Amino acid sequence: MSIETPAPEQTNTHTGALTAELHAKLLATPVAGLSAQLRKRGLNTMTIDGVRPLHPTAKLVGIAATLRFVPGREDLFISHGGGYNAQKRAFDAVKNGEVIVIEARGEAGSGTLGDILAIRAHARGAAGIVTDGGIRDCDAIAAVGIPVYSKGAHPAVLGRKHVPWDAGITIACGGTTVQPGDIIVGDADGVIVIPPAIADEIVDAALAQEEEDAWVAARVGEGNPIEGLFPMNADWRARFKQERER
Amino acid sequence: MSIETPAPEQTNTHTGALTAELHAKLLATPVAGLSAQLRKRGLNTMTIDGVRPLHPTAKLVGIAATLRFVPGREDLFISHGGGYNAQKRAFDAVKNGEVIVIEARGEAGSGTLGDILAIRAHARGAAGIVTDGGIRDCDAIAAVGIPVYSKGAHPAVLGRKHVPWDAGITIACGGTTVQPGDIIVGDADGVIVIPPAIADEIVDAALAQEEEDAWVAARVGEGNPIEGLFPMNADWRARFKQERER
Amino acid sequence: MSIETPAPEQTNTHTGALTAELHAKLLATPVAGLSAQLRKRGLNTMTIDGVRPLHPTAKLVGIAATLRFVPGREDLFISHGGGYNAQKRAFDAVKNGEVIVIEARGEAGSGTLGDILAIRAHARGAAGIVTDGGIRDCDAIAAVGIPVYSKGAHPAVLGRKHVPWDAGITIACGGTTVQPGDIIVGDADGVIVIPPAIADEIVDAALAQEEEDAWVAARVGEGNPIEGLFPMNADWRARFKQERER
Amino acid sequence: MSIETPAPEQTNTHTGALTAELHAKLLATPVAGLSAQLRKRGLNTMTIDGVRPLHPTAKLVGIAATLRFVPGREDLFISHGGGYNAQKRAFDAVKNGEVIVIEARGEAGSGTLGDILAIRAHARGAAGIVTDGGIRDCDAIAAVGIPVYSKGAHPAVLGRKHVPWDAGITIACGGTTVQPGDIIVGDADGVIVIPPAIADEIVDAALAQEEEDAWVAARVGEGNPIEGLFPMNADWRARFKQERER
Amino acid sequence: MSIETPAPEQTNTHTGALTAELHAKLLATPVAGLSAQLRKRGLNTMTIDGVRPLHPTAKLVGIAATLRFVPGREDLFISHGGGYNAQKRAFDAVKNGEVIVIEARGEAGSGTLGDILAIRAHARGAAGIVTDGGIRDCDAIAAVGIPVYSKGAHPAVLGRKHVPWDAGITIACGGTTVQPGDIIVGDADGVIVIPPAIADEIVDAALAQEEEDAWVAARVGEGNPIEGLFPMNADWRARFKQERER
Amino acid sequence: MSIETPAPEQTNTHTGALTAELHAKLLATPVAGLSAQLRKRGLNTMTIDGVRPLHPTAKLVGIAATLRFVPGREDLFISHGGGYNAQKRAFDAVKNGEVIVIEARGEAGSGTLGDILAIRAHARGAAGIVTDGGIRDCDAIAAVGIPVYSKGAHPAVLGRKHVPWDAGITIACGGTTVQPGDIIVGDADGVIVIPPAIADEIVDAALAQEEEDAWVAARVGEGNPIEGLFPMNADWRARFKQERER
Repeated sequence: MSIETPAPEQTNTHTGALTAELHAKLLATPVAGLSAQLRKRGLNTMTIDGVRPLHPTAKLVGIAATLRFVPGREDLFISHGGGYNAQKRAFDAVKNGEVIVIEARGEAGSGTLGDILAIRAHARGAAGIVTDGGIRDCDAIAAVGIPVYSKGAHPAVLGRKHVPWDAGITIACGGTTVQPGDIIVGDADGVIVIPPAIADEIVDAALAQEEEDAWVAARVGEGNPIEGLFPMNADWRARFKQERER
Repeated sequence: MSIETPAPEQTNTHTGALTAELHAKLLATPVAGLSAQLRKRGLNTMTIDGVRPLHPTAKLVGIAATLRFVPGREDLFISHGGGYNAQKRAFDAVKNGEVIVIEARGEAGSGTLGDILAIRAHARGAAGIVTDGGIRDCDAIAAVGIPVYSKGAHPAVLGRKHVPWDAGITIACGGTTVQPGDIIVGDADGVIVIPPAIADEIVDAALAQEEEDAWVAARVGEGNPIEGLFPMNADWRARFKQERER
Repeated sequence: MSIETPAPEQTNTHTGALTAELHAKLLATPVAGLSAQLRKRGLNTMTIDGVRPLHPTAKLVGIAATLRFVPGREDLFISHGGGYNAQKRAFDAVKNGEVIVIEARGEAGSGTLGDILAIRAHARGAAGIVTDGGIRDCDAIAAVGIPVYSKGAHPAVLGRKHVPWDAGITIACGGTTVQPGDIIVGDADGVIVIPPAIADEIVDAALAQEEEDAWVAARVGEGNPIEGLFPMNADWRARFKQERER
Repeated sequence: MSIETPAPEQTNTHTGALTAELHAKLLATPVAGLSAQLRKRGLNTMTIDGVRPLHPTAKLVGIAATLRFVPGREDLFISHGGGYNAQKRAFDAVKNGEVIVIEARGEAGSGTLGDILAIRAHARGAAGIVTDGGIRDCDAIAAVGIPVYSKGAHPAVLGRKHVPWDAGITIACGGTTVQPGDIIVGDADGVIVIPPAIADEIVDAALAQEEEDAWVAARVGEGNPIEGLFPMNADWRARFKQERER
Repeated sequence: MSIETPAPEQTNTHTGALTAELHAKLLATPVAGLSAQLRKRGLNTMTIDGVRPLHPTAKLVGIAATLRFVPGREDLFISHGGGYNAQKRAFDAVKNGEVIVIEARGEAGSGTLGDILAIRAHARGAAGIVTDGGIRDCDAIAAVGIPVYSKGAHPAVLGRKHVPWDAGITIACGGTTVQPGDIIVGDADGVIVIPPAIADEIVDAALAQEEEDAWVAARVGEGNPIEGLFPMNADWRARFKQERER
Repeated sequence: MSIETPAPEQTNTHTGALTAELHAKLLATPVAGLSAQLRKRGLNTMTIDGVRPLHPTAKLVGIAATLRFVPGREDLFISHGGGYNAQKRAFDAVKNGEVIVIEARGEAGSGTLGDILAIRAHARGAAGIVTDGGIRDCDAIAAVGIPVYSKGAHPAVLGRKHVPWDAGITIACGGTTVQPGDIIVGDADGVIVIPPAIADEIVDAALAQEEEDAWVAARVGEGNPIEGLFPMNADWRARFKQERER
């Protein structure tokens, strides 16, 4: 099994903020570095917390397509839970390069994703799936090869805890708010939400900082103390600039 | 301070499922009895859990008007949090006899209601307010005299944890789902959601059961054992019917 | 409404470890003082935590009669939940001076006690009821006048979360273990379990300590420092003994 | 190290509901599929939640043998915790094909299983062990090669949080109720409890559904939409039947 | 029993930032209003969350004196828990007008305050006590008449969960950080920490806002809509200024 | 990548209680065995709970060097969070053979360790890092090759939840207390704290018990029952001694 991070230029093209150049940069940038740049601009609440990647090594980059579940209620499950429900319509409609982000209120006691819908998302070219609920058929989902972040596995079907409700609205997921069109990036550290209007600025600043931090890390690995180096004082910064210019 | 449970027949009349007769019956019926009847019909997930009444003795009966907050996100609070936001619009628009039900995701770390909005709801003839978040100015709110159920007091303003987002959609509150138009009933035992289509059936069955249970309670108070009496066997039921017919 | 702490010498006499003298002493001793004496003898895990008294001023003293609920399971509720079930049999069988202690696994999402069973327990001369689950009809239960400790009110019937299972076995309640025959004492600080074999020793030691602490409290109230006085040094102890002998 | 799922036909034969044929079918059926069939029959509370497999690839199938721990209490640990206690007796008595299911109240702060008892269970032909508490010597247990599901590792001995109490009674584990004789099935999605009387019906229905779902998954993988296919409309079903009959 | 909020000008005078004028203003200002002003200046994490007042009507104003407990560890309790320990030294040393703020890590399973120490704090002129742990002898503490905020009552002595460790250092309490010398204000909405350097600015701004909000509340009570009034538009503000000048 | 457990005899030698002999013995002893010996001496609260190893196979042995973070507070982060703060000073000062133990109050919502500081600790010869908070750059930290135990990964920088405050004082971590100089041992079962004064006694007793338990495990693996063997009766013990003497 190999986990591919799908490129955005395929069929069903999503005409959003995620250009091929931006996509490539985001693939190359750790979520931790993006998080730091968001914080520098006053954005501290941009992480989807409590979710773990099904494949630790699969980088996730895409545009949010939202799906909302409401708490299980027997009468509403009868009217809205069966047949071609909101969940299934959302997976049929997902566009190439999108990440389906699911509001499940942190409730892990049922599966908010199964293997058939994961296969469908993959076939549509979706970039990944993030849910703050559980997933079922987790071994089968892992075999599909699409990046998935969730609260963990649970064998029960959706209706044990949820009613599939609507899609395409602003939702809550993992303690933050996600809007359709937000840029979603995930790696082993977690999942972050980037407002599309500042994505270029954020990723460029993060890449520049990564270069600097990698140089600092190398100096620390050589035995230099943190003091004066992290953050860099004038002497270290001069040396950094000098070496970088070579 | 006296806590009034407003009658529905006032200004701003809400033309919903809550007739004056149904309203009067619901006022007279314990939430516990309504809950038992919902369960008999397969509805087990109809309680708004984790909320407590600000005034323990205030019965709450009304029609749900929903309001949704999403998790605090600095950029969205700038765009949606200030001025005449979704929260304020909802309180200006509440109709006589309605209960404002707020989705706050169980987050109690800020106030989702303050005294000025409580005064506005009361002035509009609202029947009450239910939030699964915190409230601020709790002493001032208590003085307004409108039934309020919440997760407790917190001094911070809304924006510490929430962005006011939208109103009039189906929401989650206290672990259940609430739709605009659902009937909301609260007392010291908690808050329950009744689908309007079955409200008459539920309340009639609950009142009948209350009469029966009160008779059983009186017999138990006289020293009779539970066995055969609760539930009633044929002998006891015969005696119950006989006495009731007098 | 007045809350009586029933005296043990009535009908249905329980021939247990709780003599009238021990009962009177326990009524006069704060739970905090009993807890300290248990700890001095190496017993640190004797409190039923997370429960609150329905009437803050009602002292509870009695002998444990245990009742166990297991998690709700639809098939087992059909076979064991209805009719004259284990819960109802336990309330019919409770003896004068006993405290019904219920294992509800800390699950507060349904009522593990209703008003009719509370009336029955009171009619049988039970000393009180302790449950680490919810209670329903809480206003009606409060009117019965029997001390009740619980996790709070919930309107749903038992079967939403529990199946009534068995009685008279060793159970878990509020994080500790309770055996039938254990002595249960509750007040505003909480509920404690005392092994009957050491109850006399514990209460005598606690009462002696109370006398000493009350004398210390009076001295501290007069402006004396804690140093040397709490615990008492030789000088203070000499003065304490002298005054006590007068 | 290889993890064997022991076949039931060995020594110490358990004369229960788990025939060799049923055992083989359950081995071949995902827990998620069994869960869906239980739900179709109104059984929604049959999962042991919060436990994780020590070896993700080890399928677990067996008959429940129950063991109950009560909360740690110093006096009861002295009387019941040491020597040949209830825990040790249960492991010596486990029969071939049984799964030891332990009630540990979700308390993960000590080990409810160590390597010596795991070796004993394996030597007796037990099919596995499920505990909603912690395990200690987790690397050594993993080396034994018996399927184990738990809340995770903790180095402390049992007595830090528990007193081993009794065996062979109905217990709570992971939020559901387990009876001796229930059928236990586990895989990467979780652990499920199946009442023995309906096990044949459940597994047959699940296997039939698996076949259907696998066919649907293949069609979705070919690029077909969910709409009309999952669940299947008349056209798809006709094609499914046609292909299956070949 | 009357609950006094002690005036700061008594014996043992604390020469801190809390002048009599500032003290009087803080007594007159709701915690909710102070919280809003802190947030306006970028301070969002200043509340001690999860604590409740023992006397709902007692306003708390004072200067923080800190006390830190570390988790119970048997060897350290032997060396540091008994005799004239850090807790007792802190209560003997508290100055007039100070609030003892205790770090108990949110652990409510023992008493971090008992009646004798509460009496001592009161005798020293302390303004109050805030702990994010439990309290024991809660009825006796309530009778002392000093404002106390805690996580609730628990009968056990301190050593069940804590070792008293040190005082006068920066601590964590209820999710925020408290430094010796910080200004502490509590009421029914909760407890807030104000850095002394900005206390005058904060309270003056809060009082001005209170006046404005009270005027707005009166207008809303008269039936005016929120729109344009809360926050005030130019017309309403002109009217407000005009009336205030009269 | 290979994970080394650094030997203590290098540069920056820490002159503590951890001799080379003791270090070697601790490397050879499971944490579970050490925990059992501490309990035998009345020490039940010595585990750092809720932390997981980044590399499951890396044994951790070293001497505690403590670091304390306090809850995020905007004003204090400005004064103490930036530049060469307490966290950075602690990593520059760590000595060979030490384990940096971080108090993060169990708050996992930010990184309390990043790759550059992990590299610095490794370069200084530190034995490992234990934090009851999150870590960021977790893949990069894993590549450093120093044992790390944490609550999991989070992409945010420290300041989202913490202010780095002080070092070298007694702290709380994972529910226990850690003093500078305590011996820290970790493996797949968890992390334990050993008071240095009893470390030799503890490890010798644990090693002796390991030998005995390994012999018992072998006998159980041969099919012998637990009864009489675990714990050993006189017959088994005689045979054990006899074989050991050969």
